[in-house]
Amino acid sequence: MDSKREDKSEPMKDDISIGLIGFGTVGCGVLKLLQEKKDLLEKRVGSRLVLRKVADLNITTPRIVTPDPQCLTTDALAVIADPNIDIVVELMGGYEPAHSFLLKAIAAKKHVVTANKALIATHGNDLFRAAEENGVDIGFEASVGGTIPIIKTLKESLVANHIESIFGIMNGTSNFILTKMTDDGESFDVVLKEAQRLGFAEADPTFDVEGIDASHKLAILVSLAYGKNVKLEDIYVEGITGITEQDIAFAKDLGYRIKLLGIAVDRGDAVEARVHPTMIPFRHLLANVNANFNAFHVVGSASGSIFLYGQGAGMMPTASAVMSDIVDIARNIRKGISSRVPARSIHEADMTDIKLRPFDEVRSNYYFRFSAVDRPGVLSKISGILGERNISISTVIQKGRTKEGAVPVVMTTYKARERDVREALQAIDQLDVVLGKTVLIRVEDDQL
Amino acid sequence: MDSKREDKSEPMKDDISIGLIGFGTVGCGVLKLLQEKKDLLEKRVGSRLVLRKVADLNITTPRIVTPDPQCLTTDALAVIADPNIDIVVELMGGYEPAHSFLLKAIAAKKHVVTANKALIATHGNDLFRAAEENGVDIGFEASVGGTIPIIKTLKESLVANHIESIFGIMNGTSNFILTKMTDDGESFDVVLKEAQRLGFAEADPTFDVEGIDASHKLAILVSLAYGKNVKLEDIYVEGITGITEQDIAFAKDLGYRIKLLGIAVDRGDAVEARVHPTMIPFRHLLANVNANFNAFHVVGSASGSIFLYGQGAGMMPTASAVMSDIVDIARNIRKGISSRVPARSIHEADMTDIKLRPFDEVRSNYYFRFSAVDRPGVLSKISGILGERNISISTVIQKGRTKEGAVPVVMTTYKARERDVREALQAIDQLDVVLGKTVLIRVEDDQL
Repeated sequence: MDSKREDKSEPMKDDISIGLIGFGTVGCGVLKLLQEKKDLLEKRVGSRLVLRKVADLNITTPRIVTPDPQCLTTDALAVIADPNIDIVVELMGGYEPAHSFLLKAIAAKKHVVTANKALIATHGNDLFRAAEENGVDIGFEASVGGTIPIIKTLKESLVANHIESIFGIMNGTSNFILTKMTDDGESFDVVLKEAQRLGFAEADPTFDVEGIDASHKLAILVSLAYGKNVKLEDIYVEGITGITEQDIAFAKDLGYRIKLLGIAVDRGDAVEARVHPTMIPFRHLLANVNANFNAFHVVGSASGSIFLYGQGAGMMPTASAVMSDIVDIARNIRKGISSRVPARSIHEADMTDIKLRPFDEVRSNYYFRFSAVDRPGVLSKISGILGERNISISTVIQKGRTKEGAVPVVMTTYKARERDVREALQAIDQLDVVLGKTVLIRVEDDQL
Repeated sequence: MDSKREDKSEPMKDDISIGLIGFGTVGCGVLKLLQEKKDLLEKRVGSRLVLRKVADLNITTPRIVTPDPQCLTTDALAVIADPNIDIVVELMGGYEPAHSFLLKAIAAKKHVVTANKALIATHGNDLFRAAEENGVDIGFEASVGGTIPIIKTLKESLVANHIESIFGIMNGTSNFILTKMTDDGESFDVVLKEAQRLGFAEADPTFDVEGIDASHKLAILVSLAYGKNVKLEDIYVEGITGITEQDIAFAKDLGYRIKLLGIAVDRGDAVEARVHPTMIPFRHLLANVNANFNAFHVVGSASGSIFLYGQGAGMMPTASAVMSDIVDIARNIRKGISSRVPARSIHEADMTDIKLRPFDEVRSNYYFRFSAVDRPGVLSKISGILGERNISISTVIQKGRTKEGAVPVVMTTYKARERDVREALQAIDQLDVVLGKTVLIRVEDDQL
């Protein structure tokens, strides 16, 4: 390549110009790839990909990569207003002003790329519609599963499939914590502190450990697979803060591992969408996804089982996914086209609204751990209440004995309805022979 | 949709017409998807995908799907010559006449799709060049890994990555046999017969069990990742016919499972490409890919580890991949473009020739099983010969005793060079205390 070209402040006619909004970890990763893989990317696209502007409120702190100082600005709107910029990449996160910036960029006929899962999950509808109306592309591969090409797989590979189910480990922090708890037998609190020390968990870990982040990602996948207007409040969400080392040990005895799963299953009449800790058979691939890795097990009507695994976060893995969106769009720009693949792989006008099944109606297998008084007749009382609500017991484990006189009684069930289970546990927890709240963990056996 | 349209023998102006050459298992799957997913596919593409001609030498045997009788022909050239056909899908397999048909279709400015791994592995260069020169697209997703989107992931997702390594289970038949041998403790011959009975192995299984099929797939992936003109004869190929239940049991004791892997590793100065039975740690995801499934573990410089898993063959899984190529091309046709993504994701003119490392120079860990006379001093003789060639022993297992007086002595080594290992084994096998040929299986520990 002609090195003289790089000195010119005006982009070459054939160059494709990129503006970044947000110059944090992932932004640095994207710039690093633009610099280090410059020649490879030019060969892929047929044009140079040139960073033209980077906006961040903080442009003075040194980063691991250094952009041309002329590129730096504190004004995100200057990126959007730059007539030479073809692709605006939003990597600031959060709802506002990220949402307004993306809408403004789209209105200014810029193609956009974002890694912002919370934003796509809550405002995907209007962003996708705006992109289509303005004839620009919107890339969001990095919003779910980091480096894993799960979005492209659903939009471009499984095009002739009906998606029967998606089971995914969609949050690396929770998976890191559960893996450590499983491997070391430590408590949630101890492992959380270690995860925070190692940088795998935020100072305020709520978003990750309460399942909220996973529910955003699940909402995006559900929308790609089943239809638009997924309401986050219709997705059942339960995090991992209630998981104890004791339940992990019982799971092991039963042949399971506990993972925080995002689950979407098409039942024909409605789609189930839920995020909760789940016991899965220890030989299933998902049970062997450890540390901070993410993974997705998708069943397509023609493909059968597909399983995709990789880093769900981190500077370079996420930047790799952002770059795949940038190259996809740049290849369109080279050909003078856009909207080749609609945001959800079907034009917005053809997308139907989704019907989610109320969580109360979901049927699943269950694991219960009762804290029971160690006295004859307890098992009979508990199983009587379960039986009244058509909850059939599959396994019972009772072992150990605590000083206080309470023993853990563990049961697993055959398929039962969530509402029946909750009512039964409410009744059981009021028995005088039951001390403390019963632990409930859902079990997925037969769909995996 | 207006049902009257379907009666017209001339395609609508906006329809995209498909011609199939080869109406066997996968061809039936493709037609099934075109029929059953007609509405979904029309929504994806924005045009109807219409089957216009199907060529097969046998058009009289009933199939599970029935095309319009007017579509059927025994003349493949009639498909290529039909001016209304936009996309020619070759599903006949084999080298000739498939190769000529594809070249003729390309010369007639048809886009082409093929699932023919042997053909792409051996004639990819001229097919890709011809496609580029004629401004048409060539899709071959189904040629490697069946339904797994490994080709698209390399071409479109990992675009900003240098590929550091690819480890894959690329042949379902071999994996089915090794899984059965591992689970049931049966011999290769017994399990092969069962696989043939179940339809997982051909009457002549050579292509699959000798690693040839896997080497074709590896050659395609190596070419996508590292450069053109991969010579099949430069890829070391060893099949699974020499694997015994005894070695599988020793592998288990050592914490390994045996899988037939296709391996490509970039060593900086050269690329290693090899297919052979390999011991891998039993907790690795690849070790848990069972039955006839395929899987790929790819390490990208930015993405880190990515793992993709699914059905590597079969009617509907393969048809699903073929349809993803058809939809990709149809979306281009709708936009009036082609060659948006070059066949190898880089224009042919920019592809460099690959340099493969001679197999003799490859360094690996090894497992040896010696049949030794049960007499003092044997271990010293064997380890002496290994030591002379800088082969350091990591583990020794000696147990059991046969009636004939020979005992299996198992060793694993630290990293050693293939040539040194072969020379050492040749010398060892000539010792009078060694009865029979020593078994050698390569071990991959640290790269996985």
